Amino acid sequence: MANAVDERTRALQERSSALVTAQASDPRADIAAERRRASFAPEPLTYLLNGGKAKVERRAELARILTQTPWADKSNRHFLSREEEYVGGLRAALGIWRKMKDEGLGMQDGLMMRQLVDWPGGLELHIGMFIPTIMSQGDAEQQAKWMPLCTSLQVIGTYAQTELGHGTFVRGLETTATFDKQTQEFVIHSPTLSSTKWWPGGLGKTATHAVVMARLMLPDAATGRVADHGPHAFIVQLRCPDTHRPLRGVTVGDIGPKFGFNGVDNGFLQLDHVRIPRDHMMQRFSRVTPEGVYVPPPPANAKASYATMLYVRADIVRNAGYFLGRATTIAVRYAAVRRQTAPAPGERELQVLDYQNTSGTLLPLVAATYALWLMGDDMMAKYKRFEADRDRGEFGALPELHALSSGLKAVCTWITADGIEECRRTCGGHGYSQLSGLPSLFASYVQNVTWEGDNNVLCLQTARFILKTMAASAAKGGAGPAPGGSAAHLAAGELRRELGARCAARDEACWLQPDTVAAALRHRASRLAVTAADTLRAAAGGRLAFEGAPWNGSTLALIAAARAHCELQLALNFYAALQRWSSEGALSPVCLAALSRLAALFGLGRLELGLADLLEDGYMNGAQAAALRRASRGLLAALRPDAVALVDAFGFEDYYLHSALGRHDGDVYRALLDMAQPSPLNATEEGPAWEGVLRPAMQAARRGGGGVAPPLSKL
Amino acid sequence: MANAVDERTRALQERSSALVTAQASDPRADIAAERRRASFAPEPLTYLLNGGKAKVERRAELARILTQTPWADKSNRHFLSREEEYVGGLRAALGIWRKMKDEGLGMQDGLMMRQLVDWPGGLELHIGMFIPTIMSQGDAEQQAKWMPLCTSLQVIGTYAQTELGHGTFVRGLETTATFDKQTQEFVIHSPTLSSTKWWPGGLGKTATHAVVMARLMLPDAATGRVADHGPHAFIVQLRCPDTHRPLRGVTVGDIGPKFGFNGVDNGFLQLDHVRIPRDHMMQRFSRVTPEGVYVPPPPANAKASYATMLYVRADIVRNAGYFLGRATTIAVRYAAVRRQTAPAPGERELQVLDYQNTSGTLLPLVAATYALWLMGDDMMAKYKRFEADRDRGEFGALPELHALSSGLKAVCTWITADGIEECRRTCGGHGYSQLSGLPSLFASYVQNVTWEGDNNVLCLQTARFILKTMAASAAKGGAGPAPGGSAAHLAAGELRRELGARCAARDEACWLQPDTVAAALRHRASRLAVTAADTLRAAAGGRLAFEGAPWNGSTLALIAAARAHCELQLALNFYAALQRWSSEGALSPVCLAALSRLAALFGLGRLELGLADLLEDGYMNGAQAAALRRASRGLLAALRPDAVALVDAFGFEDYYLHSALGRHDGDVYRALLDMAQPSPLNATEEGPAWEGVLRPAMQAARRGGGGVAPPLSKL
Repeated sequence: MANAVDERTRALQERSSALVTAQASDPRADIAAERRRASFAPEPLTYLLNGGKAKVERRAELARILTQTPWADKSNRHFLSREEEYVGGLRAALGIWRKMKDEGLGMQDGLMMRQLVDWPGGLELHIGMFIPTIMSQGDAEQQAKWMPLCTSLQVIGTYAQTELGHGTFVRGLETTATFDKQTQEFVIHSPTLSSTKWWPGGLGKTATHAVVMARLMLPDAATGRVADHGPHAFIVQLRCPDTHRPLRGVTVGDIGPKFGFNGVDNGFLQLDHVRIPRDHMMQRFSRVTPEGVYVPPPPANAKASYATMLYVRADIVRNAGYFLGRATTIAVRYAAVRRQTAPAPGERELQVLDYQNTSGTLLPLVAATYALWLMGDDMMAKYKRFEADRDRGEFGALPELHALSSGLKAVCTWITADGIEECRRTCGGHGYSQLSGLPSLFASYVQNVTWEGDNNVLCLQTARFILKTMAASAAKGGAGPAPGGSAAHLAAGELRRELGARCAARDEACWLQPDTVAAALRHRASRLAVTAADTLRAAAGGRLAFEGAPWNGSTLALIAAARAHCELQLALNFYAALQRWSSEGALSPVCLAALSRLAALFGLGRLELGLADLLEDGYMNGAQAAALRRASRGLLAALRPDAVALVDAFGFEDYYLHSALGRHDGDVYRALLDMAQPSPLNATEEGPAWEGVLRPAMQAARRGGGGVAPPLSKL
Repeated sequence: MANAVDERTRALQERSSALVTAQASDPRADIAAERRRASFAPEPLTYLLNGGKAKVERRAELARILTQTPWADKSNRHFLSREEEYVGGLRAALGIWRKMKDEGLGMQDGLMMRQLVDWPGGLELHIGMFIPTIMSQGDAEQQAKWMPLCTSLQVIGTYAQTELGHGTFVRGLETTATFDKQTQEFVIHSPTLSSTKWWPGGLGKTATHAVVMARLMLPDAATGRVADHGPHAFIVQLRCPDTHRPLRGVTVGDIGPKFGFNGVDNGFLQLDHVRIPRDHMMQRFSRVTPEGVYVPPPPANAKASYATMLYVRADIVRNAGYFLGRATTIAVRYAAVRRQTAPAPGERELQVLDYQNTSGTLLPLVAATYALWLMGDDMMAKYKRFEADRDRGEFGALPELHALSSGLKAVCTWITADGIEECRRTCGGHGYSQLSGLPSLFASYVQNVTWEGDNNVLCLQTARFILKTMAASAAKGGAGPAPGGSAAHLAAGELRRELGARCAARDEACWLQPDTVAAALRHRASRLAVTAADTLRAAAGGRLAFEGAPWNGSTLALIAAARAHCELQLALNFYAALQRWSSEGALSPVCLAALSRLAALFGLGRLELGLADLLEDGYMNGAQAAALRRASRGLLAALRPDAVALVDAFGFEDYYLHSALGRHDGDVYRALLDMAQPSPLNATEEGPAWEGVLRPAMQAARRGGGGVAPPLSKL
């Protein structure tokens, strides 16, 4: 059938191009016209966003190579069964692994290929958690033993922390590791149903080993008592290297399909008194002696161990920008070529992007993409400064950085998760097709609001820092330590001044000034911080109670304060990056002007969401709010001609996007038709239900002469 | 492996129950305790919501039967390939069809079974569009010919309107039906690529016939010109009854996978000069004579034809309540048994529902479920009144009803689509598993914001009505016709009074009064209606321009007005239903008290979202806003003990929910483990990648003695 479709479709496309009338239009011409009308050429911005021209060109080259590499081919990606998706994901990961080794490629190429191929599989946690845990928590001997096994893939590992009944609260884990002095072994055991390890990627069918987080239990021979030293990391072998079958005492399997990420075999694991050697405990920082005595970690270690967490969160923030960028690229390009509703009979239908509600959805999300992307760059720079500080034993900036990274992880992943779905909806019916690329983008992204710390829990950590910083500064009659960096506005004196401040915007034009927007966002962050503290004090009889019922009963105000705090940082960082680019002279003035409008749109968008806070406390009056809204709408119109250029600038290749609607050339309808042909239902003309299901029912009816069935018109 | 898991899990569950300590807890005991602490028993409310005790019991009986019926079995539902999902969906639909026929079951049983089995398939549009089109647009002869073929399934139809390049704008359709007087046939033709029919359910591989919407083209032999009479409906046979293969000139197939609904074979169709007899045009209202003369429909028909649309929208609103009810049932039950974070070492972890941000997410969604459910009932009642009016030729209420049904379809589906995803997120990691039931619920629901009229487009229809109503009433110095019903507040005099009104709430307690909340919602709806009109006038030089650039450039304000209008109706209807129930005496006073709190929470939640509007125009001051927020928070605490009872009251069976987390008995962890076992990856212990992919790579590495691969720790 594919051939019949092909032939007929080619003929139809030729006719479509010839017939650009009121009805038929050529989307390729529409997107070309969009590029001509843009105020700037996107290439210099693409280079700036992606680390320079050389990197951008290398990535494009890799994309070209991968397009023709069987294990990286995407044309069948949307049609795979769960098993095929799992096997294909592993094959792709091993393909990259082998290509790097065979061709001596570096880390940058490896990272680019992993991103381009975009097929998470059974090796994710081997690469992302098992190896890093050995490197960071194993001692020299352990690293020497395990690393060659890991990099040569004689061992494939995973990281088993989460249990069926225990997620974010690590201290609640139930799995035990009890030391047996006699045999110099640990006995790893799952004592209850809810202690079943659940979720680790690669655990189901791929991993031969796991880092298992278990409570270290040390029996005291003299008293008979068992001391519980809390969760520690142990390497447990799960499968036989010859048969890949589970070892005795190990019950392991796949946990079934998820919303997305179905190439990954997330698994479950029950351990029934499984014995491992004493040196399988990760013992760089703490250890158990042959006599069964616990040697605790040095106190400095706790702070140093934040490095991994900060890195992971910075990476999540950076990824939030990429993911939202993919969604906005697809949605903006499609909205530029999709036409709906003619203003009058005989006229051409309008580009969907020309409806205010469409640009009012998409342009703020394009602005958010830039805000997140730039924040990701900044977080990575902050992480590197932290590493340097750490190596000098300097941890002063840690609390602020920890609070910032917690809250930004939450706020950025919320913006992106919700933003992808908004993009999908603006694509109308075709956004519901997997061929648009958007449903799978959403489904694979949304776990980001949950993993690596549930967003609400992370916001509460940021809120705790905010309240503690305020309290410390307010101590001694306001003479406590003055916070710096992202927390500078929480100093007692600053807060006092800020709460009395009033918005200075006189008209619409004022709202286009970064200072006006930043001042309002700062006021909101300050106000909500104070409100959160007041709420908590009211619930706890005047105290700042950081746990228990008063805290748990005040979380809405606390989370609101954390979000406002982080939104302020996102806007400030956006403005700062533009100022830097402007002084560096890397971009044309027209491009900078467009980006300035985008930054203003981002800031105003955040303010619109928080307008009630600013009106309620008297910072702003009704006329100022109305002017703000008009300024925001005006920016939509001003940015409209640059919409396509602004997403082109992200530099995403067609191979990477893998979307019928997001194609660079705008040929969306041809792409939908082409991409649908390999659908497994199209394998035969009559379809898979004809022989066994439809034919018997329909032919029985014909033989029976049409026996009357119940009236079904409203079933 | 399933057996090993089973045995070990049983043992672990026994231990878990015995070990209800700080770590391990029994979720079954938790949910039982929730039911004991509720202020009311849910059964009377269940009967009231579901049309009486008899219906509820009949549904439960059908659920019991279906649980044991092979074609209705759900245990494997999450593990199917696309082909299996398609074949299974058809088998289930035919199973219901045959059961109704064999056992002489009525419509109510059929509807209940379709809902319970919950497996959309290739017959959806045969039942939902093909048959109804013949019944409503076919003449008596056509009905007599086609209906027996349809009900006996000798013919399976679909409804092909949407084209690749044409969605909501029906007048833009490109497919043509050109009359050939010589042969007394219509020639149906797809002239361009973008005219390819795209999306119809069942079109891909199931349907033998389609109602095709095509522009009726009548050539005039004398002049040689062709008159275009716009879209009309034609029955086109697509497939051979013996082989089920496409007829000559018909190119048809499946459009590939979607976000959800993958049991349905949505299809594409290109017609290459396909000829059909003249009497295959649906000719109840308009027709073409043998001489090729067009007989147009009578003018009254246009109004009568709104009936189907109103019915479909009322049905969507009712379904919005059911779908959100499913999500809230799952999320609330799981939040009641899920425990995270102990307040102090050694203490039990807290129920997630006791964190304010969890109840602050879930309880407003429970409230919204009731609001939508009751609105659906009311819309159905309104639809029935419309039918009665129509039969008397009375169409006076139509414009208001049409505007209301448009806006409510949009607002209700937005609330439900977003609400399901919010419910999913509150379930943490396990909400990401398909076994929770929530990912597929979201993915199958979200097309509701797009189909049957894109939500934004529908809101604009409501906005058009609002502005026209205001303008009409304001004509003649305010002496124009006074609107009634849901539009009463748009009368010129009412608006004048309302714009000067000020909120009377003196304290928190005032915000618990329905009148205070309703007054504020009414003020907001009035204010946003006036703002929308002002915005449009400002864009159009003082005129109300209902199309063109001024209208398209004002859509944000217009949509905001429509949303506020509908939110007011939702709250008023909720209050009215409670008053009716109260006077009927069907519920206990404690149950009514809980529902009153819920209605207040719904209204306050809508007001919180629109607080800026009310502060900006001076209706409310900061102190009143703060009191409103406190009242809302207070309701969360007051409703907390009734959370589980309020979702139990919806009466959803475990079979229907098919969710590991939403089980009535709370045994969630056992359910997750059990439901995961049939995962196709678990078919063998070593998994599907071992032989072909993992084994060669890993064993080569062992033979090679561990060749060094690139440093991958940060890949």
